[in-house]
This record gives sequence, structure tokens and C-alpha cells, in this order.
Amino acid sequence: MRIDQTMVDKAEQLVPNLVSTRIEPIGTIDIVADENAFQGWRTQASDLPGEWKEQAYGKGDSFILDFGDHQVGYVTLAIKPVGSPPDAPLKLKLTFGEMPCEIAEPFASYDGWLSSSWLQEELIFVDVLPAQLRLPRRYCFRYMKIEVLDTSKKYQIGFENISCEAVTSADRSVVAPLPDTLPEDMRTMDRIAVKTLEDCMQTVFEDGPKRDRRLWIGDLRLQAQANYVSFNNYDLVRRCLYLFAGMRLPDGAVGACVFEKPYPHVDDTRLYDYALFFVSVLYDYYEASQDRDTLIELWPIAYEQLEIGVQRLGENGIVKDDPSWWSFTDWTPELNKQAPAQAVLIYCLKQGLELARLLEREEEQAFIASQIERTSRAAVAHLFDEESGFFVSGDERQTSWASQVWMALAEVLPKTENGELLDRLLKNPPSVGMTTPYMYHHLIEALFLTGRREQAIKQMQSYWGEMVQDGADTFWELYNPADKKESPYGSNLINSYCHAWSCTPTYFIRKYVVQSS
Amino acid sequence: MRIDQTMVDKAEQLVPNLVSTRIEPIGTIDIVADENAFQGWRTQASDLPGEWKEQAYGKGDSFILDFGDHQVGYVTLAIKPVGSPPDAPLKLKLTFGEMPCEIAEPFASYDGWLSSSWLQEELIFVDVLPAQLRLPRRYCFRYMKIEVLDTSKKYQIGFENISCEAVTSADRSVVAPLPDTLPEDMRTMDRIAVKTLEDCMQTVFEDGPKRDRRLWIGDLRLQAQANYVSFNNYDLVRRCLYLFAGMRLPDGAVGACVFEKPYPHVDDTRLYDYALFFVSVLYDYYEASQDRDTLIELWPIAYEQLEIGVQRLGENGIVKDDPSWWSFTDWTPELNKQAPAQAVLIYCLKQGLELARLLEREEEQAFIASQIERTSRAAVAHLFDEESGFFVSGDERQTSWASQVWMALAEVLPKTENGELLDRLLKNPPSVGMTTPYMYHHLIEALFLTGRREQAIKQMQSYWGEMVQDGADTFWELYNPADKKESPYGSNLINSYCHAWSCTPTYFIRKYVVQSS
Repeated sequence: MRIDQTMVDKAEQLVPNLVSTRIEPIGTIDIVADENAFQGWRTQASDLPGEWKEQAYGKGDSFILDFGDHQVGYVTLAIKPVGSPPDAPLKLKLTFGEMPCEIAEPFASYDGWLSSSWLQEELIFVDVLPAQLRLPRRYCFRYMKIEVLDTSKKYQIGFENISCEAVTSADRSVVAPLPDTLPEDMRTMDRIAVKTLEDCMQTVFEDGPKRDRRLWIGDLRLQAQANYVSFNNYDLVRRCLYLFAGMRLPDGAVGACVFEKPYPHVDDTRLYDYALFFVSVLYDYYEASQDRDTLIELWPIAYEQLEIGVQRLGENGIVKDDPSWWSFTDWTPELNKQAPAQAVLIYCLKQGLELARLLEREEEQAFIASQIERTSRAAVAHLFDEESGFFVSGDERQTSWASQVWMALAEVLPKTENGELLDRLLKNPPSVGMTTPYMYHHLIEALFLTGRREQAIKQMQSYWGEMVQDGADTFWELYNPADKKESPYGSNLINSYCHAWSCTPTYFIRKYVVQSS
Repeated sequence: MRIDQTMVDKAEQLVPNLVSTRIEPIGTIDIVADENAFQGWRTQASDLPGEWKEQAYGKGDSFILDFGDHQVGYVTLAIKPVGSPPDAPLKLKLTFGEMPCEIAEPFASYDGWLSSSWLQEELIFVDVLPAQLRLPRRYCFRYMKIEVLDTSKKYQIGFENISCEAVTSADRSVVAPLPDTLPEDMRTMDRIAVKTLEDCMQTVFEDGPKRDRRLWIGDLRLQAQANYVSFNNYDLVRRCLYLFAGMRLPDGAVGACVFEKPYPHVDDTRLYDYALFFVSVLYDYYEASQDRDTLIELWPIAYEQLEIGVQRLGENGIVKDDPSWWSFTDWTPELNKQAPAQAVLIYCLKQGLELARLLEREEEQAFIASQIERTSRAAVAHLFDEESGFFVSGDERQTSWASQVWMALAEVLPKTENGELLDRLLKNPPSVGMTTPYMYHHLIEALFLTGRREQAIKQMQSYWGEMVQDGADTFWELYNPADKKESPYGSNLINSYCHAWSCTPTYFIRKYVVQSS
């Protein structure tokens, strides 16, 4: 890996302090099967007699606590013995769930391709009682199931307290109130989106505080955009930019994600679109912060991403396709990435050109401008299908939502035609659709960009709005209104239900909806 | 409970320092079913290729480490990632076993009445690698099974080191070497017995370092006897005496066991014989240490035990029987405890009388002497069956080994007849036998007492000697040569395989065998 320790050190100096808030459960619940509920599970107030703090629990007893909202933090349990002096250890099983499915469906049934180690459970032995257990791992949950696997014939246990020390680096006091005129559904979406971002803001912008728990540049880009209209934490974005800049892949490309512990290190995952997004994150950061020093320092790395990006162009000026997982775009399994990647390249070249102008880098401006010209012309010549009016992708000339959305964002077609492309897309939707809020974000951004405000708001309402109807406390990594158990990982148990790239309703609402309402 | 804080404080000032020794595994093993092996399991060198430290382990891989001998201590694992940067937590399952059965038989199959929480297992998630994991709980084991439940598709793990920091308060350097003339089998038994005692000597004399892990007075009495001929740690006995003396049951009786944590407290278990043994432990302690100050301070509590003991006598001078678990004696399920309890009372009255003489307590001497006279005469009159020549116990006049052994130890019959009682016992064994090494100890002690040295050694050889043949690293809590899977708890998985009351071969060897060989 190509390490610039000075930059890494700069990033490390920007590690934020976390603010912690003590959260108590609001009560006990039961989770019952209900085919009309999201994923088939509904919560209801528990029919256990009495308060959970006043019960004695023995072998085989269990209950589910509801912490009232999504939490990211550290759990403490104060446990006392009831009966004779404890003559054997206490054996507890704990299960944490962001969603009811994680509590209701046994983890042993999980058979997905992501590691089962992400499923949040603990087997805990307590040798000495009473005990104040502060669990060392961070959990991400609203629901916590406690199963007393064993005590002994001579004693039971009681819980004097169970609480969560929720942590975030976001400062809620900074978030501006919304105007009273804003419709209720928008206010709700904004609240949940801000909470989603808040829970993902830790010592980096994490993609999901439950699963992955690391800094991906694709998520960072959207989080940073939402952050500029809410928590407005420039330093955390700067820290993340320096982490990516300071630790790159051997050829200089920015890696797809970085880990913070035990020391900062970059993953070996390389994604074409994600490397280019370094330019975009820097562009957005400068636009929000006007921090010219950082722009000057990081520009060479951004420029290098554009140079590396165009190396992939074929003689025809089109990004070379590949059967491997070379570019992200979306989780839609059959999606061909060529046209979206071409569009991302053009999009980032255009942002790069503006930065080069700001920095008065004339040679670089000239190079970028020529590449914009080359790639845009090639896109229209080779990827635009005149007959259907859609951009196509790959050898099999696949028509997908992603290709149209990204070409619209890259503004490859003239302005009017660009908007009409989206009208056609909504009117005659291609079968290769969108799976992630990340991709829906780009659709909605494109609709706002082309002045299709109503359509944009309608899409927000039918996507995030439906998550709200389905009971989201924070917005989800994956959501397919047509298949609510869908997961690219083989099981909805492992999906992240508080996910960075799903936090952008607050960005749309505060940037586009409020400003014009 | 009746607490004398001054005595408890004295006990707490005597908490010993533990000595720790770093132990590395000697290699990996497999455990294979073998009907000729003890409990059906045999260990053999693993046929895994290469050294365990040089392997990479992924999902589903497992191996078993052999630490070469029985260990009590804290385990540290140094784990490194192999492959891409770890992108998911590591999920490990650890299983610790004193014996092969604990590793080979799934704990989920356990259905005994003692808490399953004693079975030594851990489910461990490691969020950050590389990691140096120092597990906080103390384990008791020779074998450690490591199962990698999950890593991720992108990485495996390697173990740079796994070690055990073995702890004890025993000082091995104090143990006198045995004379070269002593037969090999006696030397082996002595070595294993000393190791058993060593592993049970922690901040108290524990009954078993794997299960119970507390101070029982029945175990303490035998451990102290073995300690006086080996580690010779008077302070640890004194600490234990003060713990029992300082925390008694509401009527002043000494409790059956005490716990050390989170603060010293006495259990609510009351056993008739165990309370009386406070006198016996004090008697042995004074005999070994000649510590008259402690004797003077603790004598009133010892005397009170005798007073409480005789309160249970009926008008006929015989201890009242009870269907409940009122006296320990042994784990033989059908055993009636009346006659053994009567004998324990007489045994302790006699030791009490000697202590009262030493302290020149004339009134107390007179009282005790009259009770010895009363209980001994009653025992012969009501419990001795002239026809069979055996003592009988309970309403159903049960003839058991325990009754004869304890009456012999109490020396109720004249000297010659006392020895002949044991001869009859060995010649015409009653069907109600012995289950525990604790009870075998008393048989052998009685045989030495009555001058039946050869028979005593023969019993040692056929009992502890057979444990040695069956592969004991330390001596076991339970052993029935006729039923090697026997457990009073419903499963041999939960038996303690390093148990205080089984450590007395060293006492016999050093007190009786060596002295006269």
C-alpha cells in the first residue's frame, strides 16, 4: 500500500470525542408473527406480569427489552442474586437486534455469505454476583433479548438496571429546526434520516454501525452531503479525506474502504467508481467549507484519481467492462456497470475541472477538459441507443435504471434532453432496477437536478416514506418495497438497518424541499 | 447469619499471594472413542499436518491443545489475521476440559442437576485483529478445544501463541522429597496427590478448582491433613478456620461452606457432620502448628459446635435421623447417615476433650467426657448388631461401609474389637458401599489406625492406583471402579477431576507408609 504518514497523522489528530448519552429501556415487548407486518414480525407490549426489574429469573426464563429507538453504544447490566448465595456461575445469552427479525429468527438459521460473526449475540458467564457488567463490545440495537440459560437450583437473578451508553460524534444541538410549514411526512423522514446519520457518525463516518462499521468512500460522499445541511461537522469529513489520501492502493488509487483499528489501514478492495469519488467528496467539502488549505493539499491526490480513471478507457473512449466486481454502482445482481462507471468518470471529471479552475492549474484543466470531451462524446456515440432513447451498458447492451440515472447526473446530454431521459425512465422503466437507497439517492438527485421536483418528492415518499410505514427507526441499507426480505447477502438478518447511504432524505429536504417550499 | 467481623478481618488479612507459572501447550491431540479407555475416550497425537502455530484457520476449523498436565489458571491467546484485512469480527468457541469426555461429548447433551454453567466453554467475538486476548475467567483444564466458528471470506486467522498462567498459593519448593526406597506406585500416587492439593490451593483451600471453587469444611479437613505433610502452609488453614469461625449460621453452627467473593459470606447449607468437623480441623491444626493463640481464640467456637451437636441426641443418646440431606458422610444415594453421624460426634467429642485438657478447661472437659460416655454407650447399646457384628443405622437398621468405618475411627469398641470390625467389613462387605474418595479416605485412615497397614495400602492401590491406571493427572472427586461413568450429578461431564478430598494419598504415604518403610 502507498502510505503517506503525514496525512495519516493529520487524520489521527482529527479523531473526534464521542458524546455519550445514557438510555434506559422503555419496557418489555413480545415479538409475534404477523404476515402483514414488515418481514413478518410485529412487536407488542409484553404480557409478562409486572415490571422486569421486579422479577426473579431462573433457568429458561427470558424477556425482550425495548430501548425505544435505535441505539449505538455500550450496554451495562446490574445483576443481583435472589435466594441462596449463588453456588454456580450465571450463564446468560444476549441477543441484540436493530429489527424484530433479529430477535425472532434464530441466528443458527443464518446461511448467508457475509460472516455470521456480525450477528449480535453474546454468551456470558458471571462467576461472582452481584455484578455490574459493562460489556466491552459496541452494539447497535433497539431490542435486546435476555435469556437466562442457567443459574442453579439454589438461586435466581434479578436485574437492578440495564442501560445503554449511546455514543456519537454528531452534535444534535447544531441541527437547524425545520420550518413549521413543512409537511409532517417530510419532517418524519428528516428526523429519521438525521438519526441515521447521527448513529453512523462515530470516529469516522461509518457505513453501518452494526455491520461493516468502517469508512467506505461511497457512503462517505452521501453522509458528508447530509452532514453539511445538518450536523455540519467539517473536521470529521476532513479526517476521512486524509485517511483515504494517506493510505492508497499500490498504484495510487484511493481504496474503497479503510479500517481504523488497531491502527489505520486501507482495505485491498478496489472499486472504479469509489476511487473517483475522492474527487467528488473533496469537491463537496470545499464547496461547503471553503477550506482552501485542505483543497490545495489534497488536490494532487484527487487529480491522480482522474488520471488513473481515464487509463481504463478503451480506444473508443469507453471504460472497459469486466466480469469481476470492479465497480460498485448498486447491489442489483444482474446490473452491468460499464455505462454507470463511464458516467461517474464524466461526473468526477467535471467536478475536478472546477477544482482545477479554482486552483488555477491550467495544464490540469486542459487535460481534464479534453477527457470530458472525449468521454462524453464516446458515451453518446457508443452507449446511447437512439431507438430506445436509453443509455446501454456492456457487450449485451443492457438497459438499466443505473445507467440513465448516472448519465443524467453526469449531464452528458444537453439540458432538455437530459431531463427527458429521466421522464422516459419513469414512464418506461427498464427491468434492471435499483436495490439500494444509495441508488435511489442518485435517482432523486438527478430528478432535482433536472428540475423534476415533484417526481423527486414522490420517489422519496414511495421509498423512504414506505420504510417509515414499515417501522424504520433509522433508514435501512437495503429496501425493496416489492420484496421486503430481500438481501444481497442471503439473509435479512445480516442487513444493516441503520445505514449511512440511506440518510440522504435530510439532504434533499434541507437542500431542495425547504428552500423552495 | 452470625458474623464476627474481627474474625473475618483476620481471615482477610491472611489472603495469600498466588504464584503464577506460564505453561505452553505440548501439542495438538485427537480424542477418539475407545471402549477400553476410561469413560470410553482415548487421546492420541493429532494427525493434523504441521505445527498448530503455523496453520491458518478459517470457518469450521478446529483443533485440540494438550497442556501436558492439569492446569488452573488464566489463558491468553495471541491471534493474527491471515489474508486480507479482517472485514468482520472473529467468532471463536473455546471448550476447556480436565478430561477427554469434556472435549468429546457435546455440552448440549448435559442433563444433570448441577448448573450447566460449570461446563467450561466460551463464545468469543474479536472485533479487532491482531489481538492479545487474556480471558478474564479462571479455567481448570488439561485440554483446550478451539473452534473457529467464523472469520469471513476475506481472511483467516493464525495463533502466534496460546498459554496458561497457572496459579496456586502452594509452594512446591517446601515439599520434602520422598526416600528412594519408596515403591514407584507410591511415588506416582504421591506426585498426583500433591498436584491435586496444589491446584486446589488458591486463596482458600477450594474443594475443586473447576466446580464449586469454594471452601467446604469437609474438604478442608482432609486438605489440611495433606498440607501438613507437604506444603505445610499453616496460614492458609488459619485463614479458612477464621472464615468459618467468623461467619456462622444463625444458631452458631459452623456452615458447610463459605464463598470469598464479592466479599466473604457463608452459604446457608447446614450439615451435621461438617459443623462438628470445625473441632477436628482445629485439633489437627494445633497438633501440626502448636499455634496456641489461635487455639485459644477459636476454642469457644469449637466447643459450641459440640454443644450444638449433642442437642440433636434423642433420649436414648442417639443422634436423631432425618429423611432430608442433614449430614454429608458420602454420596452413596441409599446411605443412611445416622450411625456415621453418631460416630462423627463421638470422634469430634474425643478431639474436643484433648483440646479442653490442653487449655485446662475443667468444666468443659467434664461436660465433653460425660457426652463421650453417653454417646458411646448408646452407640453400642442401640446401633451395634450383635448377630452380624456390624453397626446399623436408621429405623431400617441399614448396614453400610460408612457406619463401620466411622465407628472404627471413633473407636467406640475396645481396641481389638475395633480392628476386628474392619476385618469383618472387608471379609463380608455390606451392599451399601462407598462412592467418594472422601469415604475411601476414612476407610484407609481407619485401617492404618487399627494397624492394618497392608490392607490400607492395598485399598489405596486398588482405588487411587486404579485412577492412575485410568489416566488421572490429578485425583478425582468421584470414582467407582465398578462404574466409571458414575456421577451423583447425573453426568460425568460435570464431575470435578481435581478434587480436594481426593488428595490424601500423600497424607497416607508421608504419614504412615514412609515412616514405617
